[in-house]
Amino acid sequence: MTKKLVFGHSNPDTDTIVSAKAYSYLLNQLGEDTEAVALGTPNEETQYALRHFDEPAPRVITAAKPEVDQVALVDHNEAAQSVSDLAEVEITNIVDHHKFGLTTSTPLFIRAEALGSAASILVKMFDENKVEIPAKLAGLMLSAIISDTLLLKSPTTTEFDKIAVKTLAEIADVDFESYGLEMLKAGTNLSTKSELE
Amino acid sequence: MTKKLVFGHSNPDTDTIVSAKAYSYLLNQLGEDTEAVALGTPNEETQYALRHFDEPAPRVITAAKPEVDQVALVDHNEAAQSVSDLAEVEITNIVDHHKFGLTTSTPLFIRAEALGSAASILVKMFDENKVEIPAKLAGLMLSAIISDTLLLKSPTTTEFDKIAVKTLAEIADVDFESYGLEMLKAGTNLSTKSELE
Ligand SMILES: [Mn+2]
Ligand SMILES: [Mn+2]
Ligand SMILES: [Mn+2]
Ligand SMILES: [Mn+2]
Repeated sequence: MTKKLVFGHSNPDTDTIVSAKAYSYLLNQLGEDTEAVALGTPNEETQYALRHFDEPAPRVITAAKPEVDQVALVDHNEAAQSVSDLAEVEITNIVDHHKFGLTTSTPLFIRAEALGSAASILVKMFDENKVEIPAKLAGLMLSAIISDTLLLKSPTTTEFDKIAVKTLAEIADVDFESYGLEMLKAGTNLSTKSELE
Repeated sequence: MTKKLVFGHSNPDTDTIVSAKAYSYLLNQLGEDTEAVALGTPNEETQYALRHFDEPAPRVITAAKPEVDQVALVDHNEAAQSVSDLAEVEITNIVDHHKFGLTTSTPLFIRAEALGSAASILVKMFDENKVEIPAKLAGLMLSAIISDTLLLKSPTTTEFDKIAVKTLAEIADVDFESYGLEMLKAGTNLSTKSELE
């Protein structure tokens, strides 16, 4: 089996970083050889979540083709938001919750749904594939949903996002409301700082 | 809930006609209001399958917007193979096994996989949604897989297609090898006739 890189969009947010880690974990459990990477350094909010659940930041890449022939995209599907040399590799998998602007030269696996986050779709996929979500990963996926839905308050929030957050909070053993507020605040700090600078 | 039309590509083949019927049935079981239609008259092979399982041919449409605001596509995703006024409606669902050339203005549900037929993906979706496939529909979905994979002999055939055919043959209570040969022959007759004409 050829190695695949799994990554989200450039200017990564929490959902993009976490969903790459979650999808890579799921694919590896299903027998594939993948590595979650990122197209940029995690922002302050994501760094807060990674620190809280004791998870390292993914390796940052600037091109895919020097390493692999196949890639899996999460939290995006449009070339403009992806790795610079996307046209030179085969997209074999996509998990996304955005509108589509996608051209491929081969059939592929796509799982897309208008949920609040890509991580929410992955919660369904773990369940369907009967793969357990480890506690640390559950905490990160919870962070991704909270980030994209602003603690389940954004208009993109679905009923499933709410169920997913409750399920993940139990697995991760965290109070999602207080943890979520702290995490969102960690991200806001950066914006405030940037505005002041 | 707004009514949706569900359809496959123009110059319909058996997988396109059957997958529209199967996806419409599944969506309706899940509470949506949909109708399976077609972008052309079924070919001889498809007509053989429809007759065999006592199922009417779907209504043929030439435009979607006069009837609905939302559509579900099966067995295709590119505008060039779709209804003429696709740009005027919202694509809310896609189930497909081809390469992609898709642009949407909103997030949507997509289920794509490199299986032998769109009907094979639908077999998974019925199972995941715990919706039983009625015997008549199972016979038609079996016909779709047999058609696209040439009785599981095409290079696009996957292990899952083989499992799906066995499962569907049991539900439909048919000998898939002898039925499949007759069905493929019914389609070949047309090609032969067309060549002679
Ligand atoms: Mn994102
Ligand atoms: Mn997202
Ligand atoms: Mn077709
Ligand atoms: Mn097909």
